[in-house]
Amino acid sequence: MSDATELSPPPSAGAAALEAVVRAGGTQLGALLDRTEERLVALAGGHGATLARHATATISAGGKRLRPLLVFLAAGEAPDGAAQARLVRAAVAVELIHSASLVHDDVLDAAALRRGAPTVVAAAGRTIATATGDLLFSRAFAELVEGGELADVRALSAAASALATGELMQRTDAWDAQVPVERYLRRCELKTGSLFEAACRLGALGGGAAAAEADALALFGRRIGLAFQLLDDVLDVSGPPERTGKARGTDLLDGTVTLPLILARERDAQLARIALRTLRTAQDAEEVCDRIAATGALAVAKERALAVVADARAGLPPLPPAQRDALELVAAGVVERYA
Amino acid sequence: MSDATELSPPPSAGAAALEAVVRAGGTQLGALLDRTEERLVALAGGHGATLARHATATISAGGKRLRPLLVFLAAGEAPDGAAQARLVRAAVAVELIHSASLVHDDVLDAAALRRGAPTVVAAAGRTIATATGDLLFSRAFAELVEGGELADVRALSAAASALATGELMQRTDAWDAQVPVERYLRRCELKTGSLFEAACRLGALGGGAAAAEADALALFGRRIGLAFQLLDDVLDVSGPPERTGKARGTDLLDGTVTLPLILARERDAQLARIALRTLRTAQDAEEVCDRIAATGALAVAKERALAVVADARAGLPPLPPAQRDALELVAAGVVERYA
Repeated sequence: MSDATELSPPPSAGAAALEAVVRAGGTQLGALLDRTEERLVALAGGHGATLARHATATISAGGKRLRPLLVFLAAGEAPDGAAQARLVRAAVAVELIHSASLVHDDVLDAAALRRGAPTVVAAAGRTIATATGDLLFSRAFAELVEGGELADVRALSAAASALATGELMQRTDAWDAQVPVERYLRRCELKTGSLFEAACRLGALGGGAAAAEADALALFGRRIGLAFQLLDDVLDVSGPPERTGKARGTDLLDGTVTLPLILARERDAQLARIALRTLRTAQDAEEVCDRIAATGALAVAKERALAVVADARAGLPPLPPAQRDALELVAAGVVERYA
Repeated sequence: MSDATELSPPPSAGAAALEAVVRAGGTQLGALLDRTEERLVALAGGHGATLARHATATISAGGKRLRPLLVFLAAGEAPDGAAQARLVRAAVAVELIHSASLVHDDVLDAAALRRGAPTVVAAAGRTIATATGDLLFSRAFAELVEGGELADVRALSAAASALATGELMQRTDAWDAQVPVERYLRRCELKTGSLFEAACRLGALGGGAAAAEADALALFGRRIGLAFQLLDDVLDVSGPPERTGKARGTDLLDGTVTLPLILARERDAQLARIALRTLRTAQDAEEVCDRIAATGALAVAKERALAVVADARAGLPPLPPAQRDALELVAAGVVERYA
């Protein structure tokens, strides 16, 4: 359930697909992404030395800015100056919420590395990392409120509540290997799908989409986010570490039960008897990963993710061809991460 | 710097003053506070079993609802139905932000008790407590956004950012006994003053106040909040525990440097040489509290707080006598906590 993979250093096939999207988007998309980056750097540096030191590590050290990209792609063609400013605010806000959730996740997981660099919690301790996450979270709202669009604030608020609900669900369900598939999927939608959904909705709103189109784009985002998380959870089991940038079975060791394990337990009675709390070492986790893989559960989980991506693509509203192509490329990029 | 005292079980003189305010406010004020309470209970119960279990402990176990009270008092007389609904939302939102900050504070301080009951972190662990705080925080925004008043969301957003900035400042400055008075005061304004300020501004906005009056009421709130924190920090040193509900010197043990220590170090060279990190036991902390008290620093800190309250009262805008009396009573209640 960790989404650390997404941010790992090795360039993946998915990253190449996203770069193709940005190239195809031309100078305007590039300029909007640059403005988002500048604003994020300015925010990281504009709230005192402590935030600058620790938020810069999180905010401005990169990541592939998938959520900001979705904001701009969902907005479509050539917004005017005011619309561009609104979209940049939205892109910054979703990335801030995402960053805040990563900082808190790292605190909860006592994670040492993120994007190949020390996490805030590793560099500064739990107390400063928790406060830093709170501040990034607050700044996300401040950023949108400044723009004065209540509908935008509403979309972000819904996503932030959903994300926190999903986080709480994950922590509540920790170590419980008997969590039902439906509950796992709901948790993924809340924890990851909701912010992708908000990114697309904010883009659609800023681009002046009609309500039905905005809803359809939001649903696309929700599904892409769900698929993203499903594949991330497969990658945690499959590795390889040189590609994901982290050891296999990280989720198992912190008690996060994901679809591969749920499915594998139905297929392997001996696996079903293993209590997660008895796993202590990376070696223990790797052995369970191998057992999960041997059941064929990874392929089933991957199929499920691909079906969600297919639904996402099928549900796209009528759009100009260039916009549709770009969104399809993002969908392909999410899948390619796994390929 | 902990504001645990505020929520401690023993009824204080301050509580009596606040009860007098509520009585004087008549049925309307009582009804608004009741609606706030009902909504808080409904929210605690409406987001899954985990939140219900842990948020109920924090949200619905009481506290004296000082911030909601300020919302209603700043609003003034007889708002109509729509205005009442807006004010209740605002009161709920500020109390949720306050609750979220308490839950996170308790995580950071590894506190065992709050309002005489086990803290979320003590009952459920760090991970669930952190996620619970995040969710309460998100719900505060959702509550205001639902009301559709952008100015209200803006006021809450400013307070949430300030609160997080103050929290980060406190954790950054931890163990640094040489923190300047001005920086300490700024931290108190951010961490405590900002939410009192937002409560008053939200009340003023909901009550239809003109901009200048809203600003003046917001400043009143900010000052009352600052004084509240100053006195809270004095109480941490002075006790007595049977009145505050916690051991003396709690702040010293968690490295939080407050005005009494800052002032006392200027007066007692031997005290100035004590490194906070060397204090380990409640006994160590009590001895330092006694040394601080012996310098006369507590009286000076208290005087400073009383001067801030006097400024707050002097800066009140022209108001109907009943409203003014009620706000003055709150100011008196904040001071009486110490008396």
